[in-house]
Amino acid sequence: MTIREQASEAARAARRLATLSTAARNQALLAMADALLREEPVVLAANAADMEAGRAKSLKASLLDRLLLTPERLADMAEGLRQVAALPDPVGAILGGSTLPNGLTVTKIRVPLGVVGIVYEARPNVTADAIGLCLKSGNAVLLKGGSEALHSNTAVAAVLRRAAEEAGIPAGAVQFIASTDHGAVQELIRLRGLVDVVIPRGSARLIQAVVANATVPVIETGVGVCHTFVDASADFDKAERIILNAKTQRPSTCNALETLLVHEAVADTFLPRIVRVLQEHGVTVLGDARVQAVDSAVEAATDEDWATEYGDLRLSVKVVSGLDEALDHIASYGTKHSECILTEDYDHARRFQQAVDAACVYVNASTRFTDGFQFGFGAEIGISTQKLHARGPMALPELTTYKYLLCGDGQVRP
Amino acid sequence: MTIREQASEAARAARRLATLSTAARNQALLAMADALLREEPVVLAANAADMEAGRAKSLKASLLDRLLLTPERLADMAEGLRQVAALPDPVGAILGGSTLPNGLTVTKIRVPLGVVGIVYEARPNVTADAIGLCLKSGNAVLLKGGSEALHSNTAVAAVLRRAAEEAGIPAGAVQFIASTDHGAVQELIRLRGLVDVVIPRGSARLIQAVVANATVPVIETGVGVCHTFVDASADFDKAERIILNAKTQRPSTCNALETLLVHEAVADTFLPRIVRVLQEHGVTVLGDARVQAVDSAVEAATDEDWATEYGDLRLSVKVVSGLDEALDHIASYGTKHSECILTEDYDHARRFQQAVDAACVYVNASTRFTDGFQFGFGAEIGISTQKLHARGPMALPELTTYKYLLCGDGQVRP
Repeated sequence: MTIREQASEAARAARRLATLSTAARNQALLAMADALLREEPVVLAANAADMEAGRAKSLKASLLDRLLLTPERLADMAEGLRQVAALPDPVGAILGGSTLPNGLTVTKIRVPLGVVGIVYEARPNVTADAIGLCLKSGNAVLLKGGSEALHSNTAVAAVLRRAAEEAGIPAGAVQFIASTDHGAVQELIRLRGLVDVVIPRGSARLIQAVVANATVPVIETGVGVCHTFVDASADFDKAERIILNAKTQRPSTCNALETLLVHEAVADTFLPRIVRVLQEHGVTVLGDARVQAVDSAVEAATDEDWATEYGDLRLSVKVVSGLDEALDHIASYGTKHSECILTEDYDHARRFQQAVDAACVYVNASTRFTDGFQFGFGAEIGISTQKLHARGPMALPELTTYKYLLCGDGQVRP
Repeated sequence: MTIREQASEAARAARRLATLSTAARNQALLAMADALLREEPVVLAANAADMEAGRAKSLKASLLDRLLLTPERLADMAEGLRQVAALPDPVGAILGGSTLPNGLTVTKIRVPLGVVGIVYEARPNVTADAIGLCLKSGNAVLLKGGSEALHSNTAVAAVLRRAAEEAGIPAGAVQFIASTDHGAVQELIRLRGLVDVVIPRGSARLIQAVVANATVPVIETGVGVCHTFVDASADFDKAERIILNAKTQRPSTCNALETLLVHEAVADTFLPRIVRVLQEHGVTVLGDARVQAVDSAVEAATDEDWATEYGDLRLSVKVVSGLDEALDHIASYGTKHSECILTEDYDHARRFQQAVDAACVYVNASTRFTDGFQFGFGAEIGISTQKLHARGPMALPELTTYKYLLCGDGQVRP
């Protein structure tokens, strides 16, 4: 089947899926969780093939670990599907409306998007997560995963699709593109009219390739050059705890700290302390001349460093003259993801939150909280860094749209 | 100044505009309305140059009429700006939030999009409307109008920009691209990172060119192949009134009726009546064989007719076997704009509204009501036919996004 045919089948299924009851969709998710556990040998055998190919290609150990499926990880995937089943259904919520002077009623109701395309590179668990979230929100889903995980993804998608259809989900609602051809992504993202949105998840390169060539509407996700600004009035103990957490608790994530901005008034007091503590925790510090003056081990930060999402234990540090320079730096180099001020000054906290244009703007807390689960959404399909449709952590409501229902008894326009 | 420089200036202005008070923005809109009236001679002189060039190019009379500005039309534009000033400010509304178990508060607040690009072909009044709606909602605006109205648009934009800046709107927040170069649109729609959204308004060809080549997120507007389905149980008097209104009250609009679907059970009774009445009102009826059998003047409808937005007094008519075939036809040929069922059957009304995937789904009323003013929004920047971000009539809230404000006292992620 061609990708266009897969998308057409998904679009047809989406029409029927849109009117399926909440109970039917939840039942399917539970059946899918059971199937994943029941078919463990099949999925693990497929994964073993990917692992062998990965070792033959000398993939990095960290990549191999992300690729690996174990009985525990499969159980986590199944548990994830059960948790999604337990979440409130976003579909059908009445969002507002009115009765016009002529008696025509206008009701704004939440409905599924239709067909959601997901292009991803990461772990095979994304396959199960994405299918679960899309079906729960009444959407058909068209998946294109990375080539390293092809066997695993194919197996997981096949198991879940079969279980879903046996439980009453319309045939064709789950589509996996089992192609390693690079043109497959390009074809998928230009199926406007069949695919309602594409969400890319993975490297900055993947995301940019999707954004540059898609005609289907895209929700850009993920890249986070996150800043934390230490104001003159910051509480040093809080600041140390927050900065360490934001940088080191899980440095590979998009909400981890990448650039620390320090008010020059505390450059002599706080800066030596935080540089030392960061280095003690294995962080390589890069900085401008004033930061380098603090410690001879600090490497020079280039213009490129300010724009880089390291994703590891590196941190660029810059001394700024105050709030305004911090705001300018963030406006120039930020990716509109998560930004933070550490301050005890009410007015500065307020000004920072008003002025910074980002999905999440923090006062005195670690940027690591930018996450659908941490926000209490119970799920996450990605973190949007664009402003259209959804911003920040996206969960079930962000996988929906709305329509207006108008009920009349003969109204015409004068 | 290059288009990129204009966009950069707009982006810088947008940062300051985002924190300007409601009162300051409203005051600017009122000053702009006054300036438009005060500068009437300048604007009318510019319009006279466009009219002369249009006559020299032998533009159609209907196009010349759309191009024409008069003291009355200028007064309407000024009044439009005053009405927008009087609307509630969407910016700053608290949309929700929560306090996390660790005490971190999460507040979802409505904020401007940033820089809104508008690409349009239509009347010069769009220039004033778009500037007014964008500034009211705290956005900078980058306008690219049609070449026929270049002098008029340039004059209106210049008058409004000067008045806005004198009233305290940040310099550069209003940008008009005074180029007739076709490459200008292509450049504008690829300024991702500087422009936050592009809204094309005009012909299907313009909209498709924007959609196909933009890297900036686009909101697709306008094209409406709208259907009305006459069910077996329809009230014929209501049906006649609604169909006539939807087709003839203003046939050039995107919410006008283009294809009538008639249940075969009433093909012998209702069809001859409605064809005759439509013809009496100057409508050219095209149809399938069963419609042609009713009246020898009915031309044969081709497959292309079902997909065509006529925009004039033509109507394609098809006999269908029932609700399911009507739904299938709408799914195949509709543009997700406005669709209607005429029925007295409760279950059919309910099924139609659930199953049809469109911005506005009507029972027993004219599709001509799909309009921001008719919906009571007090304004309209366009009608979205896509599902991402906004659907149907878009007003001030649809020109905004949101961000999350997180206030803590030292929270870190365990």
